[in-house]
Amino acid sequence: MSGSSFGKAFVVTSAGESHGLGYVVVVDGCPPGVPLDVEQLRAELRRRRPGQSRLVSRRDEPDEPEILSGVVDGHTTGTPVAILVRNVDARPRDYDELVDVYRPGHADFSYEAKYGVRDVRGGGRASGRETLTRVAAGVLARNLLAQACGTRIVGWVERVGDVVAELTDPTRVERDDVERTATRCPDPAAASRMEALIERMRKQGDSIGGVAVVCAQPVPAGLGEPVFDGLDARLAHALFSIPAVVGVEKGSGFAAARMRGSEHNDPFVRDGTGTVRTATNHHGGVLGGISTGMPIVVRLAVKPPSSIARAQRTLRRDRTETELRVRGRHDPCLLPRVVPVAEAMVALVLADALLLQRRMASSSGSG
Amino acid sequence: MSGSSFGKAFVVTSAGESHGLGYVVVVDGCPPGVPLDVEQLRAELRRRRPGQSRLVSRRDEPDEPEILSGVVDGHTTGTPVAILVRNVDARPRDYDELVDVYRPGHADFSYEAKYGVRDVRGGGRASGRETLTRVAAGVLARNLLAQACGTRIVGWVERVGDVVAELTDPTRVERDDVERTATRCPDPAAASRMEALIERMRKQGDSIGGVAVVCAQPVPAGLGEPVFDGLDARLAHALFSIPAVVGVEKGSGFAAARMRGSEHNDPFVRDGTGTVRTATNHHGGVLGGISTGMPIVVRLAVKPPSSIARAQRTLRRDRTETELRVRGRHDPCLLPRVVPVAEAMVALVLADALLLQRRMASSSGSG
Amino acid sequence: MSGSSFGKAFVVTSAGESHGLGYVVVVDGCPPGVPLDVEQLRAELRRRRPGQSRLVSRRDEPDEPEILSGVVDGHTTGTPVAILVRNVDARPRDYDELVDVYRPGHADFSYEAKYGVRDVRGGGRASGRETLTRVAAGVLARNLLAQACGTRIVGWVERVGDVVAELTDPTRVERDDVERTATRCPDPAAASRMEALIERMRKQGDSIGGVAVVCAQPVPAGLGEPVFDGLDARLAHALFSIPAVVGVEKGSGFAAARMRGSEHNDPFVRDGTGTVRTATNHHGGVLGGISTGMPIVVRLAVKPPSSIARAQRTLRRDRTETELRVRGRHDPCLLPRVVPVAEAMVALVLADALLLQRRMASSSGSG
Amino acid sequence: MSGSSFGKAFVVTSAGESHGLGYVVVVDGCPPGVPLDVEQLRAELRRRRPGQSRLVSRRDEPDEPEILSGVVDGHTTGTPVAILVRNVDARPRDYDELVDVYRPGHADFSYEAKYGVRDVRGGGRASGRETLTRVAAGVLARNLLAQACGTRIVGWVERVGDVVAELTDPTRVERDDVERTATRCPDPAAASRMEALIERMRKQGDSIGGVAVVCAQPVPAGLGEPVFDGLDARLAHALFSIPAVVGVEKGSGFAAARMRGSEHNDPFVRDGTGTVRTATNHHGGVLGGISTGMPIVVRLAVKPPSSIARAQRTLRRDRTETELRVRGRHDPCLLPRVVPVAEAMVALVLADALLLQRRMASSSGSG
Repeated sequence: MSGSSFGKAFVVTSAGESHGLGYVVVVDGCPPGVPLDVEQLRAELRRRRPGQSRLVSRRDEPDEPEILSGVVDGHTTGTPVAILVRNVDARPRDYDELVDVYRPGHADFSYEAKYGVRDVRGGGRASGRETLTRVAAGVLARNLLAQACGTRIVGWVERVGDVVAELTDPTRVERDDVERTATRCPDPAAASRMEALIERMRKQGDSIGGVAVVCAQPVPAGLGEPVFDGLDARLAHALFSIPAVVGVEKGSGFAAARMRGSEHNDPFVRDGTGTVRTATNHHGGVLGGISTGMPIVVRLAVKPPSSIARAQRTLRRDRTETELRVRGRHDPCLLPRVVPVAEAMVALVLADALLLQRRMASSSGSG
Repeated sequence: MSGSSFGKAFVVTSAGESHGLGYVVVVDGCPPGVPLDVEQLRAELRRRRPGQSRLVSRRDEPDEPEILSGVVDGHTTGTPVAILVRNVDARPRDYDELVDVYRPGHADFSYEAKYGVRDVRGGGRASGRETLTRVAAGVLARNLLAQACGTRIVGWVERVGDVVAELTDPTRVERDDVERTATRCPDPAAASRMEALIERMRKQGDSIGGVAVVCAQPVPAGLGEPVFDGLDARLAHALFSIPAVVGVEKGSGFAAARMRGSEHNDPFVRDGTGTVRTATNHHGGVLGGISTGMPIVVRLAVKPPSSIARAQRTLRRDRTETELRVRGRHDPCLLPRVVPVAEAMVALVLADALLLQRRMASSSGSG
Repeated sequence: MSGSSFGKAFVVTSAGESHGLGYVVVVDGCPPGVPLDVEQLRAELRRRRPGQSRLVSRRDEPDEPEILSGVVDGHTTGTPVAILVRNVDARPRDYDELVDVYRPGHADFSYEAKYGVRDVRGGGRASGRETLTRVAAGVLARNLLAQACGTRIVGWVERVGDVVAELTDPTRVERDDVERTATRCPDPAAASRMEALIERMRKQGDSIGGVAVVCAQPVPAGLGEPVFDGLDARLAHALFSIPAVVGVEKGSGFAAARMRGSEHNDPFVRDGTGTVRTATNHHGGVLGGISTGMPIVVRLAVKPPSSIARAQRTLRRDRTETELRVRGRHDPCLLPRVVPVAEAMVALVLADALLLQRRMASSSGSG
Repeated sequence: MSGSSFGKAFVVTSAGESHGLGYVVVVDGCPPGVPLDVEQLRAELRRRRPGQSRLVSRRDEPDEPEILSGVVDGHTTGTPVAILVRNVDARPRDYDELVDVYRPGHADFSYEAKYGVRDVRGGGRASGRETLTRVAAGVLARNLLAQACGTRIVGWVERVGDVVAELTDPTRVERDDVERTATRCPDPAAASRMEALIERMRKQGDSIGGVAVVCAQPVPAGLGEPVFDGLDARLAHALFSIPAVVGVEKGSGFAAARMRGSEHNDPFVRDGTGTVRTATNHHGGVLGGISTGMPIVVRLAVKPPSSIARAQRTLRRDRTETELRVRGRHDPCLLPRVVPVAEAMVALVLADALLLQRRMASSSGSG
């Protein structure tokens, strides 16, 4: 019942706030023998960090992970893996003036309604910084998937505002293509225009939304639990739990609303090795909640960041009106930093589904 | 870990297949004193049923609910509520020829990959008929919400193919507006065009997708569990678990990807009664995963039905190629029948969140 | 969070009351290919039924099971198995006079405190009749265990009041030895004395407690989840959830409190096949929460039935004092009927642990 | 499904090993406003620590807790509370020679069977040191219970070997009575004899078992979830999950096996304030799985410690025979140190049940 835990077999539990001493993530249920080392954690956390480029928030948040348990000689032992990332500077300087204001688009008001107490220092659990626990756990999930199935998970930015990437075949995008640009868009021309747009937003004290894609392959057919825990339902849950995500689709998604069955249905075909495939992939790798073996393709809509320098009308806690200008360095566009988080959430869902499916093995084998 | 259960406090467990003896749904965790009667169940199941109008499948599936437990004198007792709906005619006539074929867009292949056995008779758990368990449980969830908070949940069809409803204010749509037309679209002009389009699809042996909306109000502020069980993440999960749903968004959703922060942020304002509201509702009633007290607005993309009369190329189980024409009466558009199912899933999520939030009550009160 | 569900991988959900239309049990998570048929269910439910002999309650409760879903051609399909047992006679005749009385030893008062409503007709969920759902689910669990590991689960009555069975080797007791007597005690001499004692209790309008044992073997080493879900902790939970159970021990149990380490420690030895065993089995088959491969041996203390014909002082709901004489036919000793229920609960725990352990398989294999 | 988590509403997740960097415990679901400070944590951890007296192991394990999150100004905020306790000296000196030996009574063999890897350095998750996470989480649970219901939880040692405490009224034992002696036995005469017995065991290179009691009061009536999550079943689960516990009983427990219904049934009576009580408390505060408002009384059997200096025959990992003498300082009796752990587990169960019961509040109130 804990909302700070995710997964049923590969179970991730997250704790920590930006104003506390640090963040902890515990992964329970990972089989023994999966590789994990601090250097890989550090590298992946760096992808999520602010201050990577001029496009994103310039606050300095060095994320130094420490593996407290569950790993010996660079491999899991089967017991819970706990990872600690301390907050270096928890002083809430930029936020002092926000103590009594409900920032539009932020969770100040809804958290207060929930807990009856105001968490004034930068957002508590709703802070984007919490996503580092997902990225850390996601590294372990990726390693499990890579070891067990050779799965690669690659995300990128498809749209920022009205700028859209054009890609011949999304299943061919590699991480190198993505990391080449600060925007994490593998179409170089679109990447330049996205960068210019984001820079313009910053100068205007405004912000802009966008769309990211995540593709995972190969994914074995048969993952996902009907009825309520279909693989796509779990992916939607996972991605929607990322701050600022406001929409999720798989395969053709909302475009399928305008399609006919004769267009949308993907014919089953046999590939060269005799494996069952589909000729097209409008279904995005999941049918009836269960993976088909085709690439998993999901797309997430991300709203424009709520912290903008422009004046905004809002209320104080005492219900009086005020005008707010959010100061400090904030991302004018979340998309580049959302990519590693979205990849991590996809990895968590797939790792969980993989372990769940193992119990379905023919029961004539031994335990 | 059961994929056939949903919810953490208001826990729904579903069982049954279209080719078995019937369906059972168990709701555990509902407080005592919530009204429930067979007549209301029957009425709501009728909304989901095939054969309601010429727009939907004409198979006859009378759904007669029986309340086995948990209800005395028309009210819950606090113990599990079990509802049984028997299958009247489980003879798999129309499906005999499909035994050895992987129907495009259906779960035949992915289920076989999962379980290693072929469930040949009409789709098993992936069958749309399974959604009756959601509708039945949803009636109880609605009654709980209505009793506790006065919440009303109204869904409707917003788009079929290229036909889109035009509504002045979506929060003013009432169920009567929706039930007036066979398409469940509250814009009468759009409803007529949708109906014509669906009829055209049927004649062409084809099918068409669309978009539905669900709006819930009033919903108390403070519902939803950070970090992984935000109210929007749970809604996305719930709606994505409905067969044929391929996308979910809240508030502005994918349109937010093209918006600026200065447009998208909803200013906090005080209404006449001193209650905190937002001037606009781009956020769809949820911020930071927690309800704000504004109407919850979610939208779901539904793919065109996969069972079409047109010839389709596909594979047999033995991997040989074949051409398939799905016979029998199938819905050329799922949207009208998706509406009551989507409403039910929204009700399940909100009822669950409401009960979860109760534990957060000040601990200075007694148990 | 549902208290009506048990298990994490082999998940059992129970619903129903003695005064409602019937009982339903749903098992989700059972792999495909496990045998199950109605005849076996019927036979096992008969072992639990009242009216089997003069030793137990003579009320007539024919338990006719119906498999609603999840089984085709006598084997599971991987989807949820739902089993329905209707109540034939739900008329609460014998209980009418009890409507306003808190029966000593019964759950009338505590249920009322929980739900705020009085469930007057024979105990609702606290009724012993609810245990039929456990027995039904237990049949499937046994079949899974038998198929996967050849596990046999045998329970018997070890003590009634001061009469104690004497057995040379408890791991050699077979079901036939147990079923030979009405008391389910495999020591014929003790069985006779138990029977006489129970008969004396009936005549005196009184009742008597006792102890039952359950032994499961072979059980593969490695089952159980540290830290909180050790196999023994799960067994204790499962057995304590049976009505009237007031104590549980494994291996030497409470006798270990008087033992020295040098007596209690079981030396590891190699058997003829090179398998690691222990020379003795004081540990009862579980060390550190994980099975060792030795026979699982658990013991449960069962209180004397609370429904006795003798006059008892108690309160009415209005807090006035009264004297109660429980009429009707009630068991003067629960032990014989507890045996099949305890076996079932052990089976549920082991089946669950077996499936959970599968995810720990080396992750270098595929999903 | 995580065996490292416990509870459904007040959810505790534990990680860490004695040979790793430290232990972390996360509590999710605690309402805001519950007091917690480091000093109280430190004091309670000290009760569990080795080296408190000559009766227990003399290894030095300073336990310095750090509250990482979820607490501001000495009170919970509603977000997850994470507590870190670092290992100071993780060098596995005393264990080097044990690397290849299956120690009798220990989990070396069963862990190896589970994970396929040998955790050679002092027992990993099966180490008694893991119980510090339970004690830390238990402090928060106690504070919640004290604030909400005034509940006090007191445990003590009732038996060591053949020495048994004699107490007039167990519900009158206070913590001060318990802490007065090194054995944590509130009967001073018995305490002296226990101490002498334990000292004799140490000199003989042997160890001894015993029984502890925990009593909780006042506990509101109505806690516990039928059918599978009765309060007594959860207590049994919780207590059995403590290393070395091999039996649990509530109220009269195994003694009830020899009692008649007319003796065992507790008459309902009205106390001076009109509250419903029972005249006796054979039921130990729980009927039908639900608390009655009477004191909760549970008893746990603890085996003699497995690490003894005497020579023991056992196997090496390569299946060859060997003789083992466990060196180093080990507890000759676990009972004194089990008391704070058992109290903590009772607190976790009650806190969880209290929060779960809140959702049952009349649904006519608001969320």
